[in-house]
Amino acid sequence: MSRTSVPRLVIVGGGFAGLWATRALARAPLRITLVDRRNHHLFQPLLYQVATAGLSAPDIAAPLRHILGRQRNVEVRLGEVVAIDRGQRQVQLADGTRLDYDLLLVASGATHAYFGNDQWAAHAPGLKTLDDALALRRKLLLAFERAEAEPDPVRRAAWLSFAVVGGGPTGVELAGTLAEIARHTLRNEFRHIDPASATVRLVEAGPRVLSTFPEMLSAKARRQLEKLGVEVVTGTAVTDIGEEGFRLGERFIPARTVVWAAGVAASPLARSLDVLLDRAGRVPVLPDLTVEGHPEIFVAGDLATLRQENGQPVPGVAPAAKQMGRYVANVTLARLQSQPAPPPFRYRDFGNLATIGRMAAVVHLGRLKLSGTLAWWFWLAAHVFFLIGFRNRLVVLLNWAWAYWSYQRAARIIFGDAGTATRDPEPPAEG
Amino acid sequence: MSRTSVPRLVIVGGGFAGLWATRALARAPLRITLVDRRNHHLFQPLLYQVATAGLSAPDIAAPLRHILGRQRNVEVRLGEVVAIDRGQRQVQLADGTRLDYDLLLVASGATHAYFGNDQWAAHAPGLKTLDDALALRRKLLLAFERAEAEPDPVRRAAWLSFAVVGGGPTGVELAGTLAEIARHTLRNEFRHIDPASATVRLVEAGPRVLSTFPEMLSAKARRQLEKLGVEVVTGTAVTDIGEEGFRLGERFIPARTVVWAAGVAASPLARSLDVLLDRAGRVPVLPDLTVEGHPEIFVAGDLATLRQENGQPVPGVAPAAKQMGRYVANVTLARLQSQPAPPPFRYRDFGNLATIGRMAAVVHLGRLKLSGTLAWWFWLAAHVFFLIGFRNRLVVLLNWAWAYWSYQRAARIIFGDAGTATRDPEPPAEG
Repeated sequence: MSRTSVPRLVIVGGGFAGLWATRALARAPLRITLVDRRNHHLFQPLLYQVATAGLSAPDIAAPLRHILGRQRNVEVRLGEVVAIDRGQRQVQLADGTRLDYDLLLVASGATHAYFGNDQWAAHAPGLKTLDDALALRRKLLLAFERAEAEPDPVRRAAWLSFAVVGGGPTGVELAGTLAEIARHTLRNEFRHIDPASATVRLVEAGPRVLSTFPEMLSAKARRQLEKLGVEVVTGTAVTDIGEEGFRLGERFIPARTVVWAAGVAASPLARSLDVLLDRAGRVPVLPDLTVEGHPEIFVAGDLATLRQENGQPVPGVAPAAKQMGRYVANVTLARLQSQPAPPPFRYRDFGNLATIGRMAAVVHLGRLKLSGTLAWWFWLAAHVFFLIGFRNRLVVLLNWAWAYWSYQRAARIIFGDAGTATRDPEPPAEG
Repeated sequence: MSRTSVPRLVIVGGGFAGLWATRALARAPLRITLVDRRNHHLFQPLLYQVATAGLSAPDIAAPLRHILGRQRNVEVRLGEVVAIDRGQRQVQLADGTRLDYDLLLVASGATHAYFGNDQWAAHAPGLKTLDDALALRRKLLLAFERAEAEPDPVRRAAWLSFAVVGGGPTGVELAGTLAEIARHTLRNEFRHIDPASATVRLVEAGPRVLSTFPEMLSAKARRQLEKLGVEVVTGTAVTDIGEEGFRLGERFIPARTVVWAAGVAASPLARSLDVLLDRAGRVPVLPDLTVEGHPEIFVAGDLATLRQENGQPVPGVAPAAKQMGRYVANVTLARLQSQPAPPPFRYRDFGNLATIGRMAAVVHLGRLKLSGTLAWWFWLAAHVFFLIGFRNRLVVLLNWAWAYWSYQRAARIIFGDAGTATRDPEPPAEG
């Protein structure tokens, strides 16, 4: 491909950082190519709802082409970036195509990480993509089916034992929703088991759940979880995870369904930037979000790491990614217009929300600390407001209203040929 | 498992026949076990909407356990029936379980068939399950992506060439919707291709599309399809299908996306009944829907074949399956109450509907023949009315209203890692 007089900006990743940068450059004299492995932008904060069958996958995703269809300076390219050639100023796609850039924004995000225990991945799936969510949904729903068909009481109990590893917002949301499904959604539907007898454990190695919230809200969250029927275990690390269960310190706990919500690592693309990464594989960026020595390369969102003035890193949350994306657009616009660079990036913290389950949430906004019903309504309003696309908002609201009144969940569909799974051939390792 | 004094009825398949029989027996003194390979009842008439990204999979499916949760004489069993032992009166599941029956209803439906050309299956997928629909959606949406990334004009044209084989209702619906997607939904979204330049062919070996409708409506349907931009080819058989295209008589037509809507065959379970099957693998049943020599075994829905008084077979459509299901329930109730058997099964034809695309459909109800806008509204009302579950109806209506006003389709999500597909290594066989 040939260079033209209009500068070429390649943006890798259509998440919050990449998409917000693209939109903020709608009127810029640039040729933008947005490359993503998937054809959709994903509203990740509601991914746990897809995993727990409350929402359909398309409810929280919108095609990138559609979002950007009218922005004429953008070309959307479905593809996987496998390498970045800083010397040639090219990114290389999996299909062999090389795209020239004058400016590059790498915002390929994060994936889940098992801290060197990759063998756990098979038994404790994580939640980052729609495919993860659908696989997890299948696993959760099938566990109840397997319990129903299992005559042996010890094995049956293992199928009715669920654990979520990691007490951050995703872990809390998953554990709370799982308890709700077991206690309410599935009521009356089985003949050999009582789904309400299922055990849902939330395991956090640190001293408290939701550690980025004030201690008072962590305590409230824990109490709300326990009221929903979740057994919260803090201060103990998971030391092993297998098909039959997991080890908590020295103790083995039978559980056929373990979900990983404990760790994230930056996308492997960070390595091809050839800079020293942090422990989680993230790229340290300068205060203008460029890579040292390469003012033409920006990194934003979960892939970047930047220390704030208070010494804390910018958190890996959606609002931070959006702000970084918009900041990169501003720096780019200033350069195109030969104006002075904007002041260094500063993360504006508008607050912190986490939902726990039916009518339970915690909200921390500056001095405002809410929990319970009011916090839940606040969380709902904020999430529906920020969902991309009018139609999605309406459908999501409708599904939630329905779920609220009926205790039912709209998307309880197991894909694939669920019935062909043969009965578990092995007894659990321990009772 | 031991026999009890309450007779055991095993129903294989939770489609229209199996589910309607189950519900009609809600108050019967029976122990019913409903076995299905999937956890949901599927509203098959709208499956093409999931395949063409208009609806989410959960919009047209409802968990069997939920539908039947309050019916206390039913147990739902997720499992695949692999054999029927008529001597022992047992069905065997894939996991080894054997279920005793006193009465058996086999209603495991049909799958698509390639008339001895099973090698076509890889290149021309069919549409029977939600998984089929999601795979087809992926294939359709990826074809436009591949065309956009393809610099060679001949190869690009092959990616923009679509064909639907089979001019029955499903084929007509798919072809009409595909043309709408190419002409309207994707407008403005690509930079290197014009999706509206895509070719959509509907190929029917017989003399006309919708052959079960009066000739006048077939002609109307053809004209409506052509107005939507579909090229309708009748009277010519497809003689080969490969990765690069298909052969129509002697002529090779490049097309990277071919959809199979031409043939169905009964579920392979029919063979384990050990009776002489018809050409499509269906089980010939007596007028009371039992198998000859086995008054305790009923067969209903697409798996059964029965000649009507007018010499025509009962058609393989949803209303016929529901009527058969209800009839089996009536025969069973009469036997339980030692009353005389009901008169032989008679299919009541309430009419025939097919939709073609935006505001285009044909309706045949006795002497009433409609086409165009009025027929479309009729079709819409009928389908929303018959969808199971209040919530689904509302969401489906909302999605349709949205699709109608915006030309957008709500579920344009490609699952899986779409970007890693490498570029096609082979040139098309012909230009």
